[in-house]
Amino acid sequence: MSTKTIPYKIYLEEKEMPKAWYNLRADMKNKPAPLLNPETKKPMTAQDLSAVFCDELTQQELDDTTPFIDIPDEIRNFYKMYRPSPLVRAYCLEKKLDTPAKIYYKFEGNNTSGSHKLNSAIAQAYYAKKQGLKGVTTETGAGQWGTALSMACSYFDLDCKVYMVKVSYEQKPFRREVMRTYGASVVPSPSTTTKIGRKILEDHPGTTGSLGCAISEAVEVATETDGYRYVLGSVLNQVMLHQSVIGLETKIALDKYDIHPDIIIGCAGGGSNLGGLIAPFMGEKIKGKTDYRIIAVEPASCPSFTRGKYAYDFCDTGMICPLAKMYTLGSGFIPSANHAGGLRFHGMSSTLSQLYDDKLMEAVSVEQTEVFDAAQKFARIEGILPAPESSHAIKVAIDEALKCKETGEEKTIVFGLTGTGYFDLFAYEKFNNGEMSDDIPTDEQIAASLANLPQV
Amino acid sequence: MSTKTIPYKIYLEEKEMPKAWYNLRADMKNKPAPLLNPETKKPMTAQDLSAVFCDELTQQELDDTTPFIDIPDEIRNFYKMYRPSPLVRAYCLEKKLDTPAKIYYKFEGNNTSGSHKLNSAIAQAYYAKKQGLKGVTTETGAGQWGTALSMACSYFDLDCKVYMVKVSYEQKPFRREVMRTYGASVVPSPSTTTKIGRKILEDHPGTTGSLGCAISEAVEVATETDGYRYVLGSVLNQVMLHQSVIGLETKIALDKYDIHPDIIIGCAGGGSNLGGLIAPFMGEKIKGKTDYRIIAVEPASCPSFTRGKYAYDFCDTGMICPLAKMYTLGSGFIPSANHAGGLRFHGMSSTLSQLYDDKLMEAVSVEQTEVFDAAQKFARIEGILPAPESSHAIKVAIDEALKCKETGEEKTIVFGLTGTGYFDLFAYEKFNNGEMSDDIPTDEQIAASLANLPQV
Repeated sequence: MSTKTIPYKIYLEEKEMPKAWYNLRADMKNKPAPLLNPETKKPMTAQDLSAVFCDELTQQELDDTTPFIDIPDEIRNFYKMYRPSPLVRAYCLEKKLDTPAKIYYKFEGNNTSGSHKLNSAIAQAYYAKKQGLKGVTTETGAGQWGTALSMACSYFDLDCKVYMVKVSYEQKPFRREVMRTYGASVVPSPSTTTKIGRKILEDHPGTTGSLGCAISEAVEVATETDGYRYVLGSVLNQVMLHQSVIGLETKIALDKYDIHPDIIIGCAGGGSNLGGLIAPFMGEKIKGKTDYRIIAVEPASCPSFTRGKYAYDFCDTGMICPLAKMYTLGSGFIPSANHAGGLRFHGMSSTLSQLYDDKLMEAVSVEQTEVFDAAQKFARIEGILPAPESSHAIKVAIDEALKCKETGEEKTIVFGLTGTGYFDLFAYEKFNNGEMSDDIPTDEQIAASLANLPQV
Repeated sequence: MSTKTIPYKIYLEEKEMPKAWYNLRADMKNKPAPLLNPETKKPMTAQDLSAVFCDELTQQELDDTTPFIDIPDEIRNFYKMYRPSPLVRAYCLEKKLDTPAKIYYKFEGNNTSGSHKLNSAIAQAYYAKKQGLKGVTTETGAGQWGTALSMACSYFDLDCKVYMVKVSYEQKPFRREVMRTYGASVVPSPSTTTKIGRKILEDHPGTTGSLGCAISEAVEVATETDGYRYVLGSVLNQVMLHQSVIGLETKIALDKYDIHPDIIIGCAGGGSNLGGLIAPFMGEKIKGKTDYRIIAVEPASCPSFTRGKYAYDFCDTGMICPLAKMYTLGSGFIPSANHAGGLRFHGMSSTLSQLYDDKLMEAVSVEQTEVFDAAQKFARIEGILPAPESSHAIKVAIDEALKCKETGEEKTIVFGLTGTGYFDLFAYEKFNNGEMSDDIPTDEQIAASLANLPQV
């Protein structure tokens, strides 16, 4: 252990920032299973994928052998506007908990998208621009990914069409207006601008939409409009690759002060943040260089790791996207409407699923009232108002720190603070008013949803 | 000029952060005029002030001779959680404008209050706690100051009562919930919790409140409740003192890279940001060490510097607070309801008013449609979604950079980016929809308001 004083916030210098992303799959002994073509059930080829994704992203999606992939200068320059993100020593939280544990968090919220999503959005926009495309399409639910993508597209002067689930479009006007300020066109889904949208509106007049429907509309527009491709903010291998910048910066900062983490904690929805945060640490663990306890935290309302099945499934409820092998609750699974804390995806990144199946990481699920309680405690003592998603990791970091208090162990805990909760204040209001409840799916609900897995 | 490469963001190390605030008044040749007791018209004494403010803040308010005042360790530790704030080189904006000017901005938005207000809130909460008080009261309009104060009080475990103008309480539920998350009690004003509130409700049933009324309620509670004091987020000398941390950090960062600014630009409402940003530069200018062009930017809808009168006036519309000599539009002046860009105070800090009267700084006013246009341009190219207040400074910084493009001069421009616009999206929506207009007071309106200045 170094004798250097650890500052409240460790910022890397620009010249210390990573110059390449780390492709964890290259070092995995058991590679994640390939995506399958939903019609032929054969592995997706580059040609299959290039109708949907632009060419370099298709390559990144399929590449499980190259360990480091250079970050193009144009992306590194954009990263310099909001990165390196600080690695913060939670001195005040440690004191409040009266724990001998040392707690650090990597804070990704200091940018207008309010989260880590921008790390991949800017990369995906760059490759689309480089290929000479006119624009990209995507779907967004709560709007975090849509915001990040609209920022990235505005920077590269690329058209950005966002299909936003209608109920969010109407209930989250702030997110919508951020996207519009960055020049994106935001369409409430289902809409009359697509065939699938018109069909759904005809079959279900008055529907408030779903993520599955928004994906279908975005994919339809991307594949049928000249010069457009579809982009996605989580789950995919390419996204894990771009997000490795989080873990790489974290590791450089820790190494600089000779800090060795014992436990690394991240929230997990589709897995983009967790996959990025743990990448270089998991790489070392796989190579047997050093050991780390790695914990994925998921909501008890949407427990894909802890109660799902490891199987091939559709990535979207519309069942038009490739099949992925992952821990899944079934593509028709929808968390309770009471669930406010994000991380609502029914499945999990193939890479993380394989690592979990190989017992290289643990997973726990937590209930939302205890998550918001941890969020409030953290806000009051560390200043930052955390996103509900991030607060899942806070809850477990606090639990681990309190265990250290009991045992007297001076463990070093690192967790990912993925973003801020400025656009989640309806959920905080519910919590502040004591109106928030927990709502956990029954075994029967999960079994029913899993009964519809595709035959592979 | 140094040959060092200037990074996108200059972060000071913790050990380089200021250890004392700078009290510009100590170096002013013409001191700002003293506050007057509204009844006796005599200068306010420490005893007069200590009924409203806690003792050390009273001292700071009256001290115009001590140039540096140590920042207590407890406050410096809190500063370390969100400071130093970055001094950003606006490389992308320079490129977009194709200007030879070098543009820097000091960004104060990387904290949950979303602005520089926290710099003074934490100081005021600290001194209240140190004096053994139970809590503080304040008013808030849009909620930026109330948020900062609730964060500070939660950190020091101090009770915080915020009187929030009723129309904002209802229309800005997000701000209200942030404050509640930090444990503040937020009361819509006018309320039945005070004598003045009950009287106003009786006289004007159905009123949606005003800042003047909220101040009156907060002061009544502070002065009539044992162990409470009132705190204020702008205008006062003590606030300028605390905010000097902005300018001190800026100067240290510039000096580190041998950068000499030619023009320093800040938005000005009550003057807390501008006063803080320019303090050390103005100090050098007064001493004749070096010259800087310093520009205050105010909204054309509330033009106290450019169209107001330099005179004693009330600080509040309720006329219960001390009289201050300042550039003012009259304490009854209310900007058009169309005005969305903040900076609504009718007067200006006494310190800045004296400096302006001494021709040590300039002032310009700008209209809100051009302000939001500059905000949108800035967001799209520099990533950060700026607060409307801050965007006044962006507008003039862009104007000055474009002048450099015409003349070919390589001037260095520094401006204050006081905060983020995450809670101002109704205003952005209006702008995005093309529904925003300019609304400038007529000469007759200003004359009518100035006709009611108090006799001194």
